[in-house]
Amino acid sequence: MEKHIIFDSERFELLLLDQRLLPGEEKFLSCGDYRDVIAAIKDMAVRGAPAIGVAAAYGCVLAARNLASEERWEEKLARALDELAIARPTAVNLAWAVNRMRKIMERATPAELVEAWLAEAREIDAEDQRTCAMIGKNGATLLKDGDTVLTHCNAGALATAGFGTALGVIRAAVAEGKKIKVIADETRPLLQGARLTAWELQKDGIEVMLACDSSCALLLQKGFAQIVITGADRVAANGDAANKIGTLGVAIIAKYFNIPFYIACPLSTIDTATTDGAQITLEARPGREVTHVGGAAIAPENTQAYNFAFDVTPASLINGIITETGILRPPYGDSIRRAFAMAAGYAGNTGKTSPSSL
Amino acid sequence: MEKHIIFDSERFELLLLDQRLLPGEEKFLSCGDYRDVIAAIKDMAVRGAPAIGVAAAYGCVLAARNLASEERWEEKLARALDELAIARPTAVNLAWAVNRMRKIMERATPAELVEAWLAEAREIDAEDQRTCAMIGKNGATLLKDGDTVLTHCNAGALATAGFGTALGVIRAAVAEGKKIKVIADETRPLLQGARLTAWELQKDGIEVMLACDSSCALLLQKGFAQIVITGADRVAANGDAANKIGTLGVAIIAKYFNIPFYIACPLSTIDTATTDGAQITLEARPGREVTHVGGAAIAPENTQAYNFAFDVTPASLINGIITETGILRPPYGDSIRRAFAMAAGYAGNTGKTSPSSL
Repeated sequence: MEKHIIFDSERFELLLLDQRLLPGEEKFLSCGDYRDVIAAIKDMAVRGAPAIGVAAAYGCVLAARNLASEERWEEKLARALDELAIARPTAVNLAWAVNRMRKIMERATPAELVEAWLAEAREIDAEDQRTCAMIGKNGATLLKDGDTVLTHCNAGALATAGFGTALGVIRAAVAEGKKIKVIADETRPLLQGARLTAWELQKDGIEVMLACDSSCALLLQKGFAQIVITGADRVAANGDAANKIGTLGVAIIAKYFNIPFYIACPLSTIDTATTDGAQITLEARPGREVTHVGGAAIAPENTQAYNFAFDVTPASLINGIITETGILRPPYGDSIRRAFAMAAGYAGNTGKTSPSSL
Repeated sequence: MEKHIIFDSERFELLLLDQRLLPGEEKFLSCGDYRDVIAAIKDMAVRGAPAIGVAAAYGCVLAARNLASEERWEEKLARALDELAIARPTAVNLAWAVNRMRKIMERATPAELVEAWLAEAREIDAEDQRTCAMIGKNGATLLKDGDTVLTHCNAGALATAGFGTALGVIRAAVAEGKKIKVIADETRPLLQGARLTAWELQKDGIEVMLACDSSCALLLQKGFAQIVITGADRVAANGDAANKIGTLGVAIIAKYFNIPFYIACPLSTIDTATTDGAQITLEARPGREVTHVGGAAIAPENTQAYNFAFDVTPASLINGIITETGILRPPYGDSIRRAFAMAAGYAGNTGKTSPSSL
């Protein structure tokens, strides 16, 4: 898939493929102001934990440029970064990306800061693509030729800077010559599975069958899939994983039918400062996203609806967490610590900021 | 709620509230021909196991009248009844209702048959309402003042001749003065929860919150509901229960969180000739019902989708089956046998055909 997060340094704007319009329309949003980026993240024009991290990094660059000529620009910029970091509450990648910018804030002039931040944002972008490639390579070892993978939501190219996490694993296995089929849960209310996962897999010629979220139990019971892989928005230090609403149910059902359940995510999604899943804030969104589909009401007028955007899958239901450093296994407290130590070692060698610095 | 299955003996047509148009439009379909009834059942203008049983009974009456003047009318009528019985494959009530008609087929003239069948269809209709009232009364003992019930699909007035099975339990508890709240799973793909359950509960002033099917795990984990009650389309002799796709997942999740899971259905839904759930045919419907919502595509063009309309919840996940004779408890082989024996006793007293005759 082509890039869907593009920084145009000539026009100095961030172009975001508007995921709300997919698959019907492929249209880019131009964000010349960091507030446009915040709105795009809040309204889910761009979504997926790694993708909003990358978008927020470029948002910081825009903020530095937008505020450069204002009085007390450093104070205002600090506030802008705070806003970017909390545009949505659950994914940790937002705060992670903004924190990387904060670490290189000491510059002589706004122009120098903009330049340094743009380089850092481009590095976060490129790192995400390398990371996804490694996640894919590590996860592909779990897939046998002929396997069908059930996935929930979209943990694909569209959820990252490219390639994807859960879908990156599938892409890597396909690139190795394995025949892999995908069952995409449609993922109500916003239908990321139907609109995004089906769309990007079809673009890559990977066979995908769509299914209502509610058919997961029947499909796993009947052996339609051999493995479940999803992404994550925040993984706690003990391995509890927040992901799109419905993931918890899929994991419980997979356990019941003895189907292995994996999370695929970069280390930047693991928040070692969060001890367990109970500490993760779960975003509640407007009920209208449930009561309306594509603008049309599907329920009586004034019907109230629950719309929690995420749930937390306990570590006990997760067979492994596929990361760029390898597949982490329970007990996750230990394996996560080791993975961060390994990544810090890499960072020491390469001079890059490691996610363990969060 | 007013009646939604009405036989107009003056015009000699069956009026069916078209459930496909709810909640946007309240419009009745007029069926003057039994083939209209078959189409209405297949296309789900009328749905719900007991409701399609009642509709099929009236369909038999129409068939007798439609075919009365034709040559070899008895042969053609037998074929029409066969067609009605298999209009949809999963719910046993269709075959059950048609079989009740077959038992009183020996009549001198077509006109006499039509008259006898209309009386029998009206009796099936009235019986269903009495049965639902008893199911409600029996099930209401499970609900405490202040409880919230999670339900899947629509097992309400619209799924029966009136009052409902799972929703009948809720209505009965409310009538007893208990404050009961309902969480309605939206029930993709055809959204019976959003369109029908929310609609009919709101009409009765019962508080209902809509939720995506995928949010069930989070809501049960967080204690938003204290009990799950659904209907059923066919219960096997061992207690395995076929119901709307997604029910199996809800039952697995309820078990995981130790929330009691109940089925509410009349004995006519229990098919003692089906030994276990593996024997139940699960209807597969067009993928377009998944890829389109209200006529609009939600997935890329030509996306293929699974669309099994039902799944089977194993008896081991069911805490009880609420029937007109009481709440059946495991082991269901025994409790179902006893319930049918009791019903046969009633039937002996009243001269009515008992469901055990199936």
